[in-house]
Amino acid sequence: MIANTYYSQEGHGPYELYDIGDLDLEEGGTIPACKLAVATHGSLNAAKDNAILVPTWYSGSSKIIEQVYIGKGRALDPDRYFIVVVNQIGGGLSTSPHNAPDGMSNFPKVRIGDDVRAQHRLLTKKFGLTSLALVVGGSMGAQQTYEWAVRYPEMVRRAAAIAGTARSTDHFRLFFESMADAITSDLAFDGGNYRQSSDVAVGLKRHAKLWAVMGWSTEFYQQGRPAALGFPTVESFVENFMGGYFAPMDPNDLLCMAWKCQHCDVSRLSRGNLAEALGRIQAKTFVMPVDEDMFFRTRDCEAEQKLIRGSEFRPLHSIDGHLALFGADAGFLAQVDEHLSELLMIRA
Amino acid sequence: MIANTYYSQEGHGPYELYDIGDLDLEEGGTIPACKLAVATHGSLNAAKDNAILVPTWYSGSSKIIEQVYIGKGRALDPDRYFIVVVNQIGGGLSTSPHNAPDGMSNFPKVRIGDDVRAQHRLLTKKFGLTSLALVVGGSMGAQQTYEWAVRYPEMVRRAAAIAGTARSTDHFRLFFESMADAITSDLAFDGGNYRQSSDVAVGLKRHAKLWAVMGWSTEFYQQGRPAALGFPTVESFVENFMGGYFAPMDPNDLLCMAWKCQHCDVSRLSRGNLAEALGRIQAKTFVMPVDEDMFFRTRDCEAEQKLIRGSEFRPLHSIDGHLALFGADAGFLAQVDEHLSELLMIRA
Repeated sequence: MIANTYYSQEGHGPYELYDIGDLDLEEGGTIPACKLAVATHGSLNAAKDNAILVPTWYSGSSKIIEQVYIGKGRALDPDRYFIVVVNQIGGGLSTSPHNAPDGMSNFPKVRIGDDVRAQHRLLTKKFGLTSLALVVGGSMGAQQTYEWAVRYPEMVRRAAAIAGTARSTDHFRLFFESMADAITSDLAFDGGNYRQSSDVAVGLKRHAKLWAVMGWSTEFYQQGRPAALGFPTVESFVENFMGGYFAPMDPNDLLCMAWKCQHCDVSRLSRGNLAEALGRIQAKTFVMPVDEDMFFRTRDCEAEQKLIRGSEFRPLHSIDGHLALFGADAGFLAQVDEHLSELLMIRA
Repeated sequence: MIANTYYSQEGHGPYELYDIGDLDLEEGGTIPACKLAVATHGSLNAAKDNAILVPTWYSGSSKIIEQVYIGKGRALDPDRYFIVVVNQIGGGLSTSPHNAPDGMSNFPKVRIGDDVRAQHRLLTKKFGLTSLALVVGGSMGAQQTYEWAVRYPEMVRRAAAIAGTARSTDHFRLFFESMADAITSDLAFDGGNYRQSSDVAVGLKRHAKLWAVMGWSTEFYQQGRPAALGFPTVESFVENFMGGYFAPMDPNDLLCMAWKCQHCDVSRLSRGNLAEALGRIQAKTFVMPVDEDMFFRTRDCEAEQKLIRGSEFRPLHSIDGHLALFGADAGFLAQVDEHLSELLMIRA
């Protein structure tokens, strides 16, 4: 295998790699000497009560979180908070199929719960934290946020789940199966034993096109957002923006995350009883779906919100749909900041 | 090539094959001795003013129209109307890639306008019709309905477009590109030169799964409709219902229809000016999108409706989404019948 230079300090740094030791996985198997790539912003205060955790989403790294959501005067203000962005397992910077010593196609199945236990170990053992002012994440970041709030209710004071659910729906599972099919159907994928990502270029393009169909919204295209983003045609947008974004990524890494988000389910912590699991949450929780999201629908998010004591339903508007998370819609970011600022002001 | 027995009188009849002569195509080329497969119900009255035309949708034949929409006491009542269901070119019963003498992979590109001109020739020359009481269709049937109403305004007295638009959106085009990719990416497709449909089983399954994602709605799965339809798991629903439905169909036929519906655009009749094209419609028109349709969105349909003089916006409710057309939701059929009955009562 040829090293993938996309996942590097140059493209995604600065971040630090923490070895959190061997991580036993929920589906069986162990990641030996599991490494988490972590970017921090700001400083922990003396009371150690100003830490914010931000887990990452499918295909995204700590870099986009920093660039799009963190900044002076923003809700996630490094002058006020100690912000810890932890890259998920399989995301390419932390331990992932493409950088695993055992070889990529043998990488074990990883669950959201594995990530959250790994992060918990990191935050408690390496950073000495016992309390989080906020856990906030989008998409798979929201999945991890819910898992955190259910699994460690005493530690999470506030939670904000943006564009994600606590339990994946059947429809979402199907959608991600088609995404995975798009990659694995490329003969060059070869059961995960390709030499380099570019060998699987055709499959990655198909996968990017499916993201173009479901990731944005119908209105995104109707209102000519591709042109507004600088692409003369829809085809060039799909080819260059979507295709270009995913092209350098590692197929096995994407598939590791795809399986993980397909199987997200906090009710595993309570024998399948979702109400019981969400009932454990003590965090003041904002549930923040995007109204035009084609897979994490507002009504599905609201149904979960109703199961969380004292939570609030805070829908966001953007015709960018799910991929409003990318931050190309400034109005969306303003809404996110407003809600998060309000949440952080609530005594918890 | 091995003959495909799916497209037969046994499965889809009775229908008659009409040779309408050579059909010159909008994209160039000619279909020599073009055959249209036609099923009729009821009789033409003396005044020749009770004819209803029903064009077919993607993958559907005249049989499902008969089984789901036509019957004594229904809006489309053969005791009152002479109902002509014409199978679209490429649909498998009419001239299509798989039954074309020139060989399937050389089949020319066909447009909605080609179908409508072919049907016009059939109805005027073979059936001696000069007026249609109603043209009604769902999905690609709606696309043909719009094309009819714009192209032959003096002939179409009423029009009902169910779950379809007059011009395909960019998003819709992308979605159908992914559908086509799902088939053509199967190596066994071999540029269209497979020996039989079952050779392309893997591609057809991927295509069926994508239909499962976008064809129904998120709520369809949330409310457990697969179980209500008799499938113990979502997987068995996708495999057996969706996969089983598409498995016997001819890949080149599906791709012919896919290209056609992607490129649907009545504004081609007025140099790209959609308002001008829709402004030509004289038919009393009902625009009937399905509220949970994930690709033909109600708002897109309503925007077109506003461009049609005297038309009415009649949205339908069904959590079956676009595939409510299949008729598994009796409540949906009742709504369709109610609107069509009302439309047929309007003097036009």
